[in-house]
Amino acid sequence: MKIKPNLKNNSLTRKIFGLNQNLKKQKIDVIEEKPLTLYLNSQEIVTMMTINDYPDYLALGYLLNQNMITNRTKIESIEYDKDLRVVVVRTYNQTNFEHKLKKKTITSGCAQGTAFGDVMESFKKIKLSNTSKIKISWIYELSKKINLTPSLYLKAGAIHGCVLCQRNSPMIYMEDVGRHNAIDKIAGYLKLKKISPHNKIFYTTGRLTSEMVIKSVQMRIPIVISRSGFTAWGVELARKANLTLIGRAKGNKFFVLSGEKRIEY
Amino acid sequence: MKIKPNLKNNSLTRKIFGLNQNLKKQKIDVIEEKPLTLYLNSQEIVTMMTINDYPDYLALGYLLNQNMITNRTKIESIEYDKDLRVVVVRTYNQTNFEHKLKKKTITSGCAQGTAFGDVMESFKKIKLSNTSKIKISWIYELSKKINLTPSLYLKAGAIHGCVLCQRNSPMIYMEDVGRHNAIDKIAGYLKLKKISPHNKIFYTTGRLTSEMVIKSVQMRIPIVISRSGFTAWGVELARKANLTLIGRAKGNKFFVLSGEKRIEY
Repeated sequence: MKIKPNLKNNSLTRKIFGLNQNLKKQKIDVIEEKPLTLYLNSQEIVTMMTINDYPDYLALGYLLNQNMITNRTKIESIEYDKDLRVVVVRTYNQTNFEHKLKKKTITSGCAQGTAFGDVMESFKKIKLSNTSKIKISWIYELSKKINLTPSLYLKAGAIHGCVLCQRNSPMIYMEDVGRHNAIDKIAGYLKLKKISPHNKIFYTTGRLTSEMVIKSVQMRIPIVISRSGFTAWGVELARKANLTLIGRAKGNKFFVLSGEKRIEY
Repeated sequence: MKIKPNLKNNSLTRKIFGLNQNLKKQKIDVIEEKPLTLYLNSQEIVTMMTINDYPDYLALGYLLNQNMITNRTKIESIEYDKDLRVVVVRTYNQTNFEHKLKKKTITSGCAQGTAFGDVMESFKKIKLSNTSKIKISWIYELSKKINLTPSLYLKAGAIHGCVLCQRNSPMIYMEDVGRHNAIDKIAGYLKLKKISPHNKIFYTTGRLTSEMVIKSVQMRIPIVISRSGFTAWGVELARKANLTLIGRAKGNKFFVLSGEKRIEY
């Protein structure tokens, strides 16, 4: 595994005293969560809650998955200010998003609805790799390897994990208080390291909602596994995009909802 | 229970075919999730993913919990357009948020960071009721009653529940694909029905992150119970606000992290 949960980083968890059900004082490990405000050039975009282990990957991945930048956007710098809790992504040219927003703010408003419309537009055009495959044994092997990896989840709970995998090997294991952050960090990593998504498998501990499906497709990852459930719109979007969607992968069970042609028996 | 999960509403779940681990076709219930775009007067605010059972409560609660309106804001109307998937909240006067945003858009940007700053400012000033109490037996009784209530969670999974309670009785049981939506629907209900929050207890199936703590405090609910874990910042904010925070409430266990003075032995 190239990146795995960093249990030695003491800034990610904290020991806290509380009272158990017998009202006895007890010390437990609790996950950290901090606000991080993201700027795209001079534009304030959003304040995110994150464990804040990879502000650069998170910032870049968020902008990519919100379609505020594209894979072709040339990045000038990513600056992180620890004290101000601010991360600034600078591009060589004004982005299409900033351009649209400038026009929009004259009439009315905000960015989130607009960004959502843009994401859905481009989602429809994405074609995922048809040659990638997944063996049923890999589903079991990946689940087992990921669940046995020492993680912040096992240490402190209240956190989600997202893992970029190739064949039966977990490669990049990111965790965060929101599963959307964990996947955004992987998206940022893919762009900065120029890694091909087409032969990858994406594993998440979280539910397969529309958000997770849209992000996976935007990242061009053709196969997604989750140990949790799914929503109807998540399934619908996965089918439209021909994404292989495998949910409820626990023990020796799983459930395939879309793109079953990529599964090798 | 005045409001409980509506299992007879067929628009909230859907039957979908998939393949199980033996690659046999199988039909399962899956939760619906739909985009809903929220406007405050002429201002586009956000597109939310929701099961969409109470667009009016959700819209109002979102605006309240984001501090875009306050409890004193006079609401002229809430209009929901089913076909456009749009909900519009109209106020008699321009809101403070719209006013601030107008100034802000001239220089740079978006609303989410700004709203967050405002929320944190007002959070510090809120005083929660000190006279409200919770008996340990109520923690067990509430958990049991809520877990035994037929719900969309038990039917289809992939959903969170939030319940407004008084003493040992669940009153308003809301579910949604995001726990932030479920709590926002309760906030909207409280405002529209003019219900006092001071003697209430809030139960959630989701984690006690900073977001859930901030929303509970903004709603002036002094006691929060969750069957899930918590984040360090969630605990820190609860302690600052003197909120009673009870996590990991499962079976005959629970863990108190803040505001233990409200617990009656």
